[in-house]
Amino acid sequence: MNLIVLTDEDRVDDERFVLSDHRAEHLVRILRVEPGDTVEAGLLNGPAGRAEVTGLTDREVTLKMTELRAILPPSPEIDLICALPRPQTLKKVLLTCGMMGVRRLYLTRANRVERSFYQSPLLSPAAWRPFLLEGMSQGKWTRLPDVEIHDRFRRFFEDALPGREATEDKPGVKLLADLEAPGRLDRLLDRTASRVIIAIGPEGGWVPFEIELMERLGFTRFCLSRSVLRVEAAVVAALSQIELVTQRDTE
Amino acid sequence: MNLIVLTDEDRVDDERFVLSDHRAEHLVRILRVEPGDTVEAGLLNGPAGRAEVTGLTDREVTLKMTELRAILPPSPEIDLICALPRPQTLKKVLLTCGMMGVRRLYLTRANRVERSFYQSPLLSPAAWRPFLLEGMSQGKWTRLPDVEIHDRFRRFFEDALPGREATEDKPGVKLLADLEAPGRLDRLLDRTASRVIIAIGPEGGWVPFEIELMERLGFTRFCLSRSVLRVEAAVVAALSQIELVTQRDTE
Repeated sequence: MNLIVLTDEDRVDDERFVLSDHRAEHLVRILRVEPGDTVEAGLLNGPAGRAEVTGLTDREVTLKMTELRAILPPSPEIDLICALPRPQTLKKVLLTCGMMGVRRLYLTRANRVERSFYQSPLLSPAAWRPFLLEGMSQGKWTRLPDVEIHDRFRRFFEDALPGREATEDKPGVKLLADLEAPGRLDRLLDRTASRVIIAIGPEGGWVPFEIELMERLGFTRFCLSRSVLRVEAAVVAALSQIELVTQRDTE
Repeated sequence: MNLIVLTDEDRVDDERFVLSDHRAEHLVRILRVEPGDTVEAGLLNGPAGRAEVTGLTDREVTLKMTELRAILPPSPEIDLICALPRPQTLKKVLLTCGMMGVRRLYLTRANRVERSFYQSPLLSPAAWRPFLLEGMSQGKWTRLPDVEIHDRFRRFFEDALPGREATEDKPGVKLLADLEAPGRLDRLLDRTASRVIIAIGPEGGWVPFEIELMERLGFTRFCLSRSVLRVEAAVVAALSQIELVTQRDTE
């Protein structure tokens, strides 16, 4: 937990927050904070800064926020499309989205997605949110990623996604990771990109019909790796390659 | 399981192999193979090809290897240095090494590595090998990564690693992922690299003394991500960024 993410439910007044859940336990048992100590903390969908421990009991930690500063989201903004994975994999994907600053996660149907995955209790905001928050605490981001569930492949790509895209003011580069693609990502993307939409297929990959449809709708295939990656690894690999080719050095 | 990895213990004659463990179960229950079907298979530390199912019972699958061809290891060769992580994380790192074709994994001590991690029963070849093999079956590699355990930070970097390097016929580019570094990987590595040694720190990062010592020994820092990544994600991110900047397009 590199950043304690505070929400309105934790707030007791303008600047003080009281925690009594796993965050309090982390502060007390792992970080062993004492009154007067400060830790890194941020406000959900808001700025971040230092939080001073002003009260401490066995069960509760009171924090007072100071030194707030804005947290800029990653640039370019990244929207991730994932063929809905099995629940254990989805947990890892949610965590990664929080950890790596993804703006929106679209979960969609594909030929190789099992119908039963749509019955997972994980597919509700209350169930997926803790995984996003855990990732944000790890990656040090404060913005909660959006999650959308779509259960029709064509309807998502032909209607829902273009509808979403029509409301955007910056054009998105649409990318599709495909083991068979000849080109690497640096052929398709550079530091001028303002928004990226990246699609990661199910275990076993997209079927040809799906790839053709996505290509027709403006997605370009690229080879993420010579290795056949697990979905959760493919997501990390794609996000980190996108970051590499779109970021400027800070020196 | 995208590639069934066969070992000498499975071999019953020149071309036939009998499986009765989780690989047999995968073939029977998940892939639902029938006699005459073929699946992708490879020989441990050897070539890969098709395996024909020539016998099938409830508990055993007999495979006959055909169409063997060499599997080229990744180029450049990658050696990964990892500050020894907690056992649950180490399992994921081992799997990733198998999945992404790492040649050698050095596990080393660091200031922020807990001593107790060295007591893990995972730290024996018999215990770590299944995780490597699972990764290889996923990533479709046949070469088993080497694993070495080192319990002294300085002795590893000052003696053991240079000793290893002295026996190599190709020079290695030594890289060190560091959140605070100003430059990105593409400043340090390109398609001419013949060997890469990449170091990933513990949760919480390397301490300044460690970074200074590594830099003095020829490691160059780079910024892997603006996000603070978990160790298992940092390993995937680093390997996939290295692959991006060192691979040629296949078109």
